Amino acid sequence: MSKLQELLAVLDEQVKATAGHVYNYTVPDLWNCFDYQGEELRKTPWGELVVNPYRFYRDAIRHFIRPKAGTGAGPGADAGWGEPLSRHQAVEPGLEGGDWIKRSTVYSMMVRTSTAWDHDRSGNLEDDNLYGLKETGTFVKSLALLSLLHKMGVTCVYLLPISKFSLNDKKGELGSPYGVSSFFKLDPGLKDPITGPGFSVEDEFRAFVEACHILGMHVMIDLIPRTNSVDSELVIDHPDWFYWIRHEALGQYRPPYVPGLGIQIRPKAEFLPVIYQSSEVRHHLASFMENPKDADPGKWEELLAFIRDNPGQRVMETVQKWFGLTVAPAFSDQINDPQPAWNDVTFFRMYLDHPVAAVPLLDRAYAPYILFDVIKSNLFQGKVRNEPLWELLEGIIPYYQEHFGIDGARIDMGHALPRELVERIIQSAREVDPQFCFIAEEMEIERAASSRELGYNMILGDGFIQEPRVLEYRTHRYFYGARHLPCPVYACGETHDTPRLASREGGRDLSRMLTIMNLFMPNGVPFINSGQEVFELQPMNTGLDCRPNEAYLLDPKDPYYGRLALFDRYALHYLNAGRWELPDQLAWLAGLRRDHLATFTCLDNVTPLGFNSPRDPGIAFGFNDDDKRGRMVQEDSVFVVVANTDVHNPQYLTVHLQPLRQATGNSARKGLQLFSSHGLAREVHDYDTHGNLSMSFQPGEVKIIRM
Amino acid sequence: MSKLQELLAVLDEQVKATAGHVYNYTVPDLWNCFDYQGEELRKTPWGELVVNPYRFYRDAIRHFIRPKAGTGAGPGADAGWGEPLSRHQAVEPGLEGGDWIKRSTVYSMMVRTSTAWDHDRSGNLEDDNLYGLKETGTFVKSLALLSLLHKMGVTCVYLLPISKFSLNDKKGELGSPYGVSSFFKLDPGLKDPITGPGFSVEDEFRAFVEACHILGMHVMIDLIPRTNSVDSELVIDHPDWFYWIRHEALGQYRPPYVPGLGIQIRPKAEFLPVIYQSSEVRHHLASFMENPKDADPGKWEELLAFIRDNPGQRVMETVQKWFGLTVAPAFSDQINDPQPAWNDVTFFRMYLDHPVAAVPLLDRAYAPYILFDVIKSNLFQGKVRNEPLWELLEGIIPYYQEHFGIDGARIDMGHALPRELVERIIQSAREVDPQFCFIAEEMEIERAASSRELGYNMILGDGFIQEPRVLEYRTHRYFYGARHLPCPVYACGETHDTPRLASREGGRDLSRMLTIMNLFMPNGVPFINSGQEVFELQPMNTGLDCRPNEAYLLDPKDPYYGRLALFDRYALHYLNAGRWELPDQLAWLAGLRRDHLATFTCLDNVTPLGFNSPRDPGIAFGFNDDDKRGRMVQEDSVFVVVANTDVHNPQYLTVHLQPLRQATGNSARKGLQLFSSHGLAREVHDYDTHGNLSMSFQPGEVKIIRM
Repeated sequence: MSKLQELLAVLDEQVKATAGHVYNYTVPDLWNCFDYQGEELRKTPWGELVVNPYRFYRDAIRHFIRPKAGTGAGPGADAGWGEPLSRHQAVEPGLEGGDWIKRSTVYSMMVRTSTAWDHDRSGNLEDDNLYGLKETGTFVKSLALLSLLHKMGVTCVYLLPISKFSLNDKKGELGSPYGVSSFFKLDPGLKDPITGPGFSVEDEFRAFVEACHILGMHVMIDLIPRTNSVDSELVIDHPDWFYWIRHEALGQYRPPYVPGLGIQIRPKAEFLPVIYQSSEVRHHLASFMENPKDADPGKWEELLAFIRDNPGQRVMETVQKWFGLTVAPAFSDQINDPQPAWNDVTFFRMYLDHPVAAVPLLDRAYAPYILFDVIKSNLFQGKVRNEPLWELLEGIIPYYQEHFGIDGARIDMGHALPRELVERIIQSAREVDPQFCFIAEEMEIERAASSRELGYNMILGDGFIQEPRVLEYRTHRYFYGARHLPCPVYACGETHDTPRLASREGGRDLSRMLTIMNLFMPNGVPFINSGQEVFELQPMNTGLDCRPNEAYLLDPKDPYYGRLALFDRYALHYLNAGRWELPDQLAWLAGLRRDHLATFTCLDNVTPLGFNSPRDPGIAFGFNDDDKRGRMVQEDSVFVVVANTDVHNPQYLTVHLQPLRQATGNSARKGLQLFSSHGLAREVHDYDTHGNLSMSFQPGEVKIIRM
Repeated sequence: MSKLQELLAVLDEQVKATAGHVYNYTVPDLWNCFDYQGEELRKTPWGELVVNPYRFYRDAIRHFIRPKAGTGAGPGADAGWGEPLSRHQAVEPGLEGGDWIKRSTVYSMMVRTSTAWDHDRSGNLEDDNLYGLKETGTFVKSLALLSLLHKMGVTCVYLLPISKFSLNDKKGELGSPYGVSSFFKLDPGLKDPITGPGFSVEDEFRAFVEACHILGMHVMIDLIPRTNSVDSELVIDHPDWFYWIRHEALGQYRPPYVPGLGIQIRPKAEFLPVIYQSSEVRHHLASFMENPKDADPGKWEELLAFIRDNPGQRVMETVQKWFGLTVAPAFSDQINDPQPAWNDVTFFRMYLDHPVAAVPLLDRAYAPYILFDVIKSNLFQGKVRNEPLWELLEGIIPYYQEHFGIDGARIDMGHALPRELVERIIQSAREVDPQFCFIAEEMEIERAASSRELGYNMILGDGFIQEPRVLEYRTHRYFYGARHLPCPVYACGETHDTPRLASREGGRDLSRMLTIMNLFMPNGVPFINSGQEVFELQPMNTGLDCRPNEAYLLDPKDPYYGRLALFDRYALHYLNAGRWELPDQLAWLAGLRRDHLATFTCLDNVTPLGFNSPRDPGIAFGFNDDDKRGRMVQEDSVFVVVANTDVHNPQYLTVHLQPLRQATGNSARKGLQLFSSHGLAREVHDYDTHGNLSMSFQPGEVKIIRM
């Protein structure tokens, strides 16, 4: 039986067991895009629904997800939904090898946050609320959220890390899921008590993946092979995979300063002599120690025995106490980056010797050390691969494929991994599922070609930095420029590391404009960052492009003021005024996109359009149907998508249509405004004598016209 | 067994029956001034408590009220608490005959509103919430609220009408409790389902009165003998007690215009010729009809039989249908008052003939009619008393005394009742309880003497109009002037009919200053209007002194925007920021007042104090102990209470102390600031060379100094 069916059965039992109980348990109405019909349902005026939780989540499966699983409903008949989605979908020609991502709309979610809610309204996001249920997010609760994603046309769910992470010396209230301590265990914090002890968090994740697949959504995870928690569970068996310093030196530990190079410099081979001459660097190198096992094998054996006998003991604490050693924290790979060391994570030793290029520069023998060159093991390799580690790392994705049926992964800091290791990781996954998709955490679009070469299907890009900068025309450059790249980039204005669009200059007008336009960026994969759809203001992390007050954008009376989802208990503002605006617009646009998917996502079908002047704040693209390119085509297959990127002023814009008319042969002088972010559908007669579209736009308005 | 003990037993049963049930039921933390200890208690950051309702209200009785009932706890031992409080308290010399009110602090509450709460947070104040419990106020829930009143030093609870009122053609969502339809039934809307069907609303009210008495609080009700609902239950047996018009004329019915007299004129004998010459008046008089019983006794008998056989039928509707007649609505007793007719109430026929003074002015025979003279039956009497009506009216209070043990009453529109009737009402009550207190709804303080003569213990006064008008020095006049009146007035800045103090010019600073100073107004009885203690902004009714936008003072997003407690489902803003400020200050002041009650409430003990100039914004009174007047007294019995009535600016004020020093012999040059509304207790050395107090005050600050 599929895990989703098992989960349904478990919840069904609970619904029966709790018959007659009164639940004052609320969910945001946005979680109910499946028309929940529980007779106990009460709607509050502010957008919360009072429901029986067991029944609500059960019905999300029973009435929304399961009916889409197709016929043949006997137990096990649909067990296949736990397989990668590629086994259920025919591969479109030209989209082999994971390129299905080109047709996707991605939703980035952090399970812990995206379905967090103060269900009992006690004022806290409890692990064990009034009803013994969990208020931070879980896979089970995410099944209801999938109805919102489905409505918005999402076809790929990208999950921020879901693996077990370290809870020692954790950042914030809960710790960051990027400090992975065990690749092959899931975060036990995601386990939902609603299913009872008989159902594991692994079961719940598998049920979630099945549900996504049934809804036609791929599932991608975040793989973090370069770093690991400083108290990684791998330390016990493999102390030699890590870098060690004296525990007492931890307080002084920081990235060494290299004089004469400026700040935030990417390491290059020619800098190495300067780096290794720095006295701070030499001092830094000298602080590294042999790993405890090699330093005293006998004592290490004793320690292992002690740990076995005292399973409650924290391993790293014991090592620190017995050996006076600790794992060295990681830091930025950029020289003279002002960031302090990342205290919660460390780097793996990719090679068991020093970088080849560095060896001649060393004045004496050093224990394995972390330095800018060592970190960037794509550029600076040793001679002796850490083969057992590489084998472990290339086995992670196959584990998630086999156990959970995931469809893709983003490789975190892949740019700092040895090229061969990346290739092996990609190859191992594609052996299991040839359609497995890889996304490179590569922000520099100039490196798109080399990523593509390595086997990645797409790169991140830096839309979240470019797109919001309307006044600098960086929005224009990004939108018009992406089509020249050898692989897609994310069409996105925010990520979990950046400011929220709604908090940028232009606020909701900017967010609405970009969120919609991203569905139409040539060579862009639309990417929605959880919370973006309700104009969330507070970033999840202040990692990239943030202002000094970025974590303090909420009303100081807001319970989440100053909290960051990546570290703290955090619930998105699903009750925001206007919460249905973007979901409703996206729902309509998703229908259009679905009906004309190739039209909008094949680069061959797009014609970039200009305005009277390159300084005009408009962005426009023409689209026409694949098959009919260059021939007289039917009216209903030529579309113009235009945005007024001026989010403060109305604008009168003239879209020059000649290139589109040439490409399509369309000479229509009337059209239909199918969509406006600010208005209604209407007939369009606003053509000038040259046949160009001349229309007025509200600030940030996006219009779609069928010619 | 006392009803309170029965109620305790009922709730105790419920606590047992609901063991293990989870209740997500909230109350404002202000309702818990009894340190509720339920283990299920959760406190939300915004001031709501999540509790098991059965246990919460039970514990209010068990742990807060009952322990104060004294020893001898056997069932029935304390049944006496249902008797008037005078049977439990020795009458202080000089305070006989209901004058205990002079020592009281009164809290005016409307049960339906004062304990209304959206307990299940569904967004509505339901009669039957998620737990089958009532969300508008009830006597049972008021038992918890009593802990707040007790904390604030309240010793008399004045209840807005609690009798059954008409639900036909009701104003607002719930109708006004001033449209009484049955004197001898309680409003069934106040019944709390928490006690189940075996316990009546009468039982609950009796338990409430017992609880008040145990806490040393008198209970007063509002008696409305002049008017009654237009579909009064008395119509069936006594159609001749009412005025009738054709039903079809109801739409045009309004107070007739009298030319040549100006607007809002009190009727006087000399105006009668002008009134009766008005053509509109004659037209108005002609619209009245004989009552249906006398018009067609046979048909009336049939109607009575029909009503008996069809108990679901609305009486007045049937009369309208069968006879084409209806009871005439009441209207203002002032000539040419712009108010329209009061559609929900009518006047009783106090006399069965026309006013004696009017008879010579009538051009022909008229059916009994309502007119300005008829309404003011204190001034314009007929010859034939409606004796059965008078007997009924004088029996109302004895009924409430005997069944519920009430201690006093306010007579609504007593100024429009025949003097003899008022005397009979007062006498009947005093026969049952010689200490029964009567308050006249008399706003004109010049009439205090005649009210006192009639047997009233105090009059309303017009503090709610005078006190807020600081800039016009009407505050000064009211505070300094009241001590010359022959009976006390309310020391109050707002009532259920007026704007809220917190919404007046000066806002919270004004409200705080007056609420505190009212405890010290010579000859004033402190009066707190429910909600005043949490700076409620929205009035309960817009009857007096209101601005055009008075009903729209809340945030338009507030669920009670535009709602008025007198007509609509309304809950006070118990979660207001600063909600504990006034209760905490009042609690401290109540202790001081209790310890020196005679000092602060005997007129003999007060010395009004002046400032450098009569234009100074200060108000000050000196108080010293009763027994020690005119002799050297101990330091700790001479108090100065000073307010800066300037609610916008800090002021440096010099209080001239000579009169107090003369009266008391106190010559101290140092004192102790016991209290400040804006600061802490401290030693005071701020005396000038004349021995006067020279101190700076924050805007609206009140200080109490012991000399």
